[in-house]
Amino acid sequence: MRQRNVVVIGGGPGGYVAAIRAAQLGARVTLVEKDKLGGTCLNVGCIPTKVLLHTAELFNELDHVKELGIDVKNPRVDWKTLMKRKERIVAQLTGGVKGLLVSNGIEIVKGTASFRSSGEIGVDWADGNTMNIEADSFIIATGSVPFVPPVPGTHLPGVITSSEALSLDVVPKSMVIIGGGVIGVEFASIYSSLGCSVTIIEMMDQILPNMEEELADILKGSLLSRGVKVNTQAKVTSINKDGIGLQVRFEEKGAEKAVSAEKVVVAVGRRPNTAGLNLEAAGVRLNKDRIIVNDRMKTAAENIYAVGDCTGKMMLAHAAFAQGVEAAENIMGKDTKMDYKTVPSCVYTQPELASVGMTEKLALERGHDIKVGRFPLMANAKSLIMNQTGGMVKVISDKKYDEVLGVHILGPRATDLITQGALALRLEATLEEIISTVHAHPTVGEALQEAALAADGAAIHLPGTRG
Amino acid sequence: MRQRNVVVIGGGPGGYVAAIRAAQLGARVTLVEKDKLGGTCLNVGCIPTKVLLHTAELFNELDHVKELGIDVKNPRVDWKTLMKRKERIVAQLTGGVKGLLVSNGIEIVKGTASFRSSGEIGVDWADGNTMNIEADSFIIATGSVPFVPPVPGTHLPGVITSSEALSLDVVPKSMVIIGGGVIGVEFASIYSSLGCSVTIIEMMDQILPNMEEELADILKGSLLSRGVKVNTQAKVTSINKDGIGLQVRFEEKGAEKAVSAEKVVVAVGRRPNTAGLNLEAAGVRLNKDRIIVNDRMKTAAENIYAVGDCTGKMMLAHAAFAQGVEAAENIMGKDTKMDYKTVPSCVYTQPELASVGMTEKLALERGHDIKVGRFPLMANAKSLIMNQTGGMVKVISDKKYDEVLGVHILGPRATDLITQGALALRLEATLEEIISTVHAHPTVGEALQEAALAADGAAIHLPGTRG
Repeated sequence: MRQRNVVVIGGGPGGYVAAIRAAQLGARVTLVEKDKLGGTCLNVGCIPTKVLLHTAELFNELDHVKELGIDVKNPRVDWKTLMKRKERIVAQLTGGVKGLLVSNGIEIVKGTASFRSSGEIGVDWADGNTMNIEADSFIIATGSVPFVPPVPGTHLPGVITSSEALSLDVVPKSMVIIGGGVIGVEFASIYSSLGCSVTIIEMMDQILPNMEEELADILKGSLLSRGVKVNTQAKVTSINKDGIGLQVRFEEKGAEKAVSAEKVVVAVGRRPNTAGLNLEAAGVRLNKDRIIVNDRMKTAAENIYAVGDCTGKMMLAHAAFAQGVEAAENIMGKDTKMDYKTVPSCVYTQPELASVGMTEKLALERGHDIKVGRFPLMANAKSLIMNQTGGMVKVISDKKYDEVLGVHILGPRATDLITQGALALRLEATLEEIISTVHAHPTVGEALQEAALAADGAAIHLPGTRG
Repeated sequence: MRQRNVVVIGGGPGGYVAAIRAAQLGARVTLVEKDKLGGTCLNVGCIPTKVLLHTAELFNELDHVKELGIDVKNPRVDWKTLMKRKERIVAQLTGGVKGLLVSNGIEIVKGTASFRSSGEIGVDWADGNTMNIEADSFIIATGSVPFVPPVPGTHLPGVITSSEALSLDVVPKSMVIIGGGVIGVEFASIYSSLGCSVTIIEMMDQILPNMEEELADILKGSLLSRGVKVNTQAKVTSINKDGIGLQVRFEEKGAEKAVSAEKVVVAVGRRPNTAGLNLEAAGVRLNKDRIIVNDRMKTAAENIYAVGDCTGKMMLAHAAFAQGVEAAENIMGKDTKMDYKTVPSCVYTQPELASVGMTEKLALERGHDIKVGRFPLMANAKSLIMNQTGGMVKVISDKKYDEVLGVHILGPRATDLITQGALALRLEATLEEIISTVHAHPTVGEALQEAALAADGAAIHLPGTRG
């Protein structure tokens, strides 16, 4: 049988994983990338933000190490060293992606792709040359770009997106972050830890609008206690130059307000990057700027698939990984469907926030008769030892089937602990199955078992009712 | 119906949890404790060691924070503050246990119990008085004590057990630890981090003899790189006074050797604490000093149960928790069996080591045709960000059924990540089910999914074979 030719457009998480999986399954794969391998995630997203967050978190902990029996004098962040570390890690990981592609026999083409037809793309090289590539199947993985809303003043110097916020020359004295989603909250966490006065302006009535409200509220409290100012139900009306640098005007619950800062970070979201692909010529259909795909990641064109942020489904690197695998497997003859049920959402603040499955609100909206179990980390020995007791685990389950519907964790190591929640959803686990799994002591993870017990009022380490 | 009377002997993890669970299910519960609530775990075991390990770990990290962009001058550990923190946390948690017992309506009796018959115990109070207590059911949870082997010199001043090693006045300059199990390795990690010169002497041919050998070896390498000396296949023959303090003589692979140190910690294991209970009068049977129980935690006497270290099953606090729940539930009419399959083993070193299910060796011994998947944390983005890439995840599965048999993690957060492995075993998950669970990016937890993929040579982030 002739080897199947697959062309992947875009070398970010969705694209490079799709390419590797297709190669593993025997395809001859070409990957076209116009900029840097690794995409948003590795270059200006997950990875560099987590590098900054890790240092910020450790630096934060130094404020409290005296209680732990450690004396340190004058800790300070060396921003230039941190920036270099960030660049070094990004370079190492993007280099790693290149190595993975090469070791899987994937050809990397540097250029900008656009479709000629459903079976052919043209690639514009940086030097002006053009090359046409035919293939049996295509996987579009062109990612997303920061969305800048139509607010007067966003063109001013000092108004930046998350990409530039990762590479500032110095830590600014003050910063306004427009948008209190994951990106905004993570930047607030980084810069407030480093001594910058941060103000968040969020349109919805809570920060992290899609996360479990109760936990987002506790996290908000933690941000407030570190000096971050949080405005919700607040809509930015304009940005202007002023003495300090920039003045952001906004309406909060009807009242007109203003805040000034050196830098303004626009972090209201991202939009699919689908312009210039000439998708019409290929028969690929869009919903606004999102590529329409089915649950096998196939577009309206029979032999063209799309994965990651350009589909606008869930703009998360690990969702793109999973979609990339799905697309590659379906192209290579495995019939598999994408299931978003186990996709976790993580916020790498301190405490960390991680969620998988339904929030309480969503479960009620979908008509479930639910049980809710809560376990505060105040009652968890390991959190006490780690001096991080401000969190909580919340488990949502279906009363009738005892099935776990959602797991929400605010606390140390939450982003790693959520793997258990994801597996529980994958296997349609019941509360009873979580309860009867032995959880190591002392761990933060015990709080998951206790939250499951608490749903039936049977937590061991919460006060009883017979005293 | 008359309320069932349950007496629990021992207020450690097994006992207090059994008491609370029995009370939740409607029993009238009395708990007899001769010493301190919380038992070994809270007073001289898991909790105080983890307090010391947490500070030691953070202090260790300070050696490397310059790379992370943090400047600190002259970090040092204030041992007295650390000791006070340890005492404060122990006091808070043991106070918490008392509060839990009281809020569940459990009567706490301070004294030493011994059986009069299978239906009655006598309790000797500290003031010399004696009280008899009858009950419908008893749960023995008397724990364990450090085992001191018959080696000449163990009576010398400066030769201590793990209990005393938690409360030294100062950090000694040098220490010999006899026993390279979990306790020995954790103390080596603590004291070597704090500038003490540590030597481990272990009889078996690897440290942590019951853990996955390959990972225990990597951990040994990490201890060596921090200056810990490790002698395996080495048997201590005597301890004598010498200039420095104490000289430990031992035979290593036939050769006679000696090492001197200020302190010698005997950490070769623990033995069940069953003396003085007058078990014969109750019809409870022993195997040596272990109380014999069935898988419902019932002893040879119909109405007497035993849980935790005194059964010698798995001397782990979380195993005792689970056994305590089993015993209480069986007494209160729920017919449930103890399953040890999901009991994790954890070592809180840096990196952490955590294991659940079968090691490769054990799986082969039991005749499984296995697949082994390995993923080095060198290839895991979050571990790189955390500057802790020395670990590995290893997954053992059954080739025929694709069933996960064992999960072994050496790396940051391993003790919490192992909850996913435990749940996988509980639900008899297949590798395919772990692989098709979306793992958040970037997390250490991704390495579990990659290790599962690696078992079939399909890891995404390991080099391919077609380059």
